[in-house]
Amino acid sequence: MAEELFRTRGYASVAIADIAAALGMSPANVFKHFHSKTSLVDAISAHHIETTLARLACLDAGKPAPERLYDLVKQLMDSHLRDLAENPYLFEMVLLTAKDDLECGHRYRDMLLATVRTIIDDGIVQGTYTATNSRQAAQTAIFALACVLHPVMIANEKADILATRCREVVALINAALQSPLAK
Amino acid sequence: MAEELFRTRGYASVAIADIAAALGMSPANVFKHFHSKTSLVDAISAHHIETTLARLACLDAGKPAPERLYDLVKQLMDSHLRDLAENPYLFEMVLLTAKDDLECGHRYRDMLLATVRTIIDDGIVQGTYTATNSRQAAQTAIFALACVLHPVMIANEKADILATRCREVVALINAALQSPLAK
Repeated sequence: MAEELFRTRGYASVAIADIAAALGMSPANVFKHFHSKTSLVDAISAHHIETTLARLACLDAGKPAPERLYDLVKQLMDSHLRDLAENPYLFEMVLLTAKDDLECGHRYRDMLLATVRTIIDDGIVQGTYTATNSRQAAQTAIFALACVLHPVMIANEKADILATRCREVVALINAALQSPLAK
Repeated sequence: MAEELFRTRGYASVAIADIAAALGMSPANVFKHFHSKTSLVDAISAHHIETTLARLACLDAGKPAPERLYDLVKQLMDSHLRDLAENPYLFEMVLLTAKDDLECGHRYRDMLLATVRTIIDDGIVQGTYTATNSRQAAQTAIFALACVLHPVMIANEKADILATRCREVVALINAALQSPLAK
């Protein structure tokens, strides 16, 4: 119900009391489960992260690491763009809760870090990547990818411009990971 | 006067009429020079860009290209952090006018692109960088640097975390520019 109301009326203008009223419940009853709008955001975002994870599970692990890195980033970017187009209220939520340290944010970052790190580890084993510290390399790569993955960076950009940017930034990261200078 | 009022009262809550009143002018008189608050933002931002340019002029062009790239990014990041701390209204302005296609934004991007490109060109001449298309390499590097240069990406981050991130992302870009795979 919270997701439905945020979607139709906008995150900022819906209070917990509105959600309770729409459910025919007392606000106290909603507060029992969600102590704040922020905890509702956490629950809704966790659901979207599960969906994203399910999409990522379809990626082909048999390809060379550099291609897998590109596939992962492209798929995540497209997933975020779909979310932004279909659920603009999600974007408002992300902006308004950016300062709060939400559990779902940590889960998303951990999930992304683990996925990128697995690809880099596989690339090192295959002899494609020269990096030695895969955790740090994955972390740095994810920072560099903010320009194609962070909602704020992609929300007002055209899809074809983003597709080019995604290809070029992943190529830059792949060049770095295959460089003799990689750490 | 606009800058002063934005700074003390916040960008969103100051109208052109307030600026005119503070100047003892008619609103029409202000409108004659600035057709909208957005055009005032453009003028104020252009001034800040000039200041940033003046700071960048102090960088040592005698160092090797990879060090110069780091110096440039570090200095720009620190400059943005100073602006965010001293003039939080600037951040509000950036957010609220992000969708508007301001002239000052183009000037900033052009200035940054030209500066990074010069460093890459020098690195190619010195035989340090293997990139062949310096314009595209500079553009891609700037996208990857959004995580340490874009106000939204750095506004809520601690200075020491950003300093580490800056060093690592520039090292990634330098590794890519020195890779045999660089384009």
